[in-house]
Amino acid sequence: MEKPKYHVFVCGSARLVGENKGFCLQKGAIDIIQNFNEEIQDRGLDSEVMVSSTGCVGLCSMGPVVMIYPQQIWYGKVTSDDVEEIVDALENGETIERLVI
Amino acid sequence: MEKPKYHVFVCGSARLVGENKGFCLQKGAIDIIQNFNEEIQDRGLDSEVMVSSTGCVGLCSMGPVVMIYPQQIWYGKVTSDDVEEIVDALENGETIERLVI
Repeated sequence: MEKPKYHVFVCGSARLVGENKGFCLQKGAIDIIQNFNEEIQDRGLDSEVMVSSTGCVGLCSMGPVVMIYPQQIWYGKVTSDDVEEIVDALENGETIERLVI
Repeated sequence: MEKPKYHVFVCGSARLVGENKGFCLQKGAIDIIQNFNEEIQDRGLDSEVMVSSTGCVGLCSMGPVVMIYPQQIWYGKVTSDDVEEIVDALENGETIERLVI
């Protein structure tokens, strides 16, 4: 199966069973995911970029955390306002140094 | 920050808010994640392998789905019995062809 060029994982603090109550979720993970989905749709990048939420990745003090694979770029303290810039960077093959953890 | 050599993502069918009711979860995602964590601990691979659950990745007919990054290996119809073999393959830099999707 063809893999996405960029697989964006957004920590959603999900617990495996039950409620999601973690830090990244409280700090806007849902807005971040929604903004990614909108940017990707607006730019017609559906076939290149996939967005998934994840369970807690244990980096709560640096959350909300966004991990981009296979490029292995990890961003911390991401806000929904950063998403447009992150997608710009993906399209340009760049990394946003101020967000890197 | 140092990244894990292998980041194993197991689809846990998580919904962003509320209950987890999806296919991968029903088909044993929790056991798969627990087995990964046990194998990793037993082999002392904690610093090399990280395991995260994800929200639904939309491949329900091929679930439970396990994705390994940055290697971009995607496995489908994984059972908890496959986990030991998957970790063996990681350690040997190999891919288990019968599980690849």
